[in-house]
Amino acid sequence: MGPAATAEFYAKLIARTPAERDQDHLPVAIWADPRVPDRVAAVIDGSTDPYPAMLNGALRLRDIGATLVAVPCHTAHFFLPRLIEDSGLPFVDMVAETVGELLRGPMNAAGLLGTRATIQSGLYQNRLHEADFDVAVPDEPLQQQVDLAIKKVKQGDTMAAAEHLGLVVRELSTSAVVLACTELPLAVPFIPGPCEVDLIDPTVLLADAVIRECR
Amino acid sequence: MGPAATAEFYAKLIARTPAERDQDHLPVAIWADPRVPDRVAAVIDGSTDPYPAMLNGALRLRDIGATLVAVPCHTAHFFLPRLIEDSGLPFVDMVAETVGELLRGPMNAAGLLGTRATIQSGLYQNRLHEADFDVAVPDEPLQQQVDLAIKKVKQGDTMAAAEHLGLVVRELSTSAVVLACTELPLAVPFIPGPCEVDLIDPTVLLADAVIRECR
Repeated sequence: MGPAATAEFYAKLIARTPAERDQDHLPVAIWADPRVPDRVAAVIDGSTDPYPAMLNGALRLRDIGATLVAVPCHTAHFFLPRLIEDSGLPFVDMVAETVGELLRGPMNAAGLLGTRATIQSGLYQNRLHEADFDVAVPDEPLQQQVDLAIKKVKQGDTMAAAEHLGLVVRELSTSAVVLACTELPLAVPFIPGPCEVDLIDPTVLLADAVIRECR
Repeated sequence: MGPAATAEFYAKLIARTPAERDQDHLPVAIWADPRVPDRVAAVIDGSTDPYPAMLNGALRLRDIGATLVAVPCHTAHFFLPRLIEDSGLPFVDMVAETVGELLRGPMNAAGLLGTRATIQSGLYQNRLHEADFDVAVPDEPLQQQVDLAIKKVKQGDTMAAAEHLGLVVRELSTSAVVLACTELPLAVPFIPGPCEVDLIDPTVLLADAVIRECR
């Protein structure tokens, strides 16, 4: 989906695979079609449906021999059940991996940052609330800062993105924050000043799940 | 070929594409099969032939709609003429792009670092010598340091790789050095101490050529 987030996910998958030489790594095929219509607009107001383009990608990956699929895009997880059903492929569910990790840990509350679509769809909150886990989401002015952080990463300006992200993380005042948009972790290294908050990166959990499932 | 080099090349391609949003980026399909047999051994002593696996990758990319192919691996360029002929696909030639850039510049000499196979095959030297451009290559003890630098990047230890690379670059005593193995640029940011040498990264030229050809 987001090209920079896809490249970063692939780099994480490689970095987290125990390997001494090329041949120890997983065979990977990537379908990165940035022409897929905006997932956020589609979830929020039913604009141009991205699903046919997403399914096309899944089917092409199936055709060239993929046996497990990871989608490093949270908003796209809204469409995951249909993708699984229509492609017949197994997918690793990044939201389920992250919810599982949160519920196994010592916390019972966290902040959640993502696109408006991820937040509004309740993708994370529904599963966490069921387990009595509290979730703090940004109010409208803070969501605008999250939107800007995501937009700036997509434009290649991670420094500007980090300014917006740092502001939101501090304002949210939770001890941990889930970065539930795959663009956000790219800005983390550039957040100005000290940041005491535990920033949880679901793409790391997705990478580990892929490695676990393939071994 | 090398997974980390492939991820880094994809990140460079994205970073160097002028874009304001996802939809401005190039559609990319990546076939990253690390089970391709060792290209270096094959070129040097005719060990297990990697060509069938490489051709298989090219054909799969063709099947899912690729119209232009880039191979971010110098040693693999030894096989490029056969790949172009057997797949019928256009490939961007990273060696040609780099040689062209060198010959357009003000220099008439440079150092060359790569795998033993890239050096021994004369992939770069033949084209550069034809244009009276001098090429300095490592002697055997220095080549062993280059081999170690490449191996350490493949093991994910870019810090150790940078120690070996820094040593070679200083010993070679040329004002510019072509990093003609796609693993080497990953170690550059970690070279200890000051490094006055102009380090030329052919993967950047490959990324720019892909963007140019696709626009």
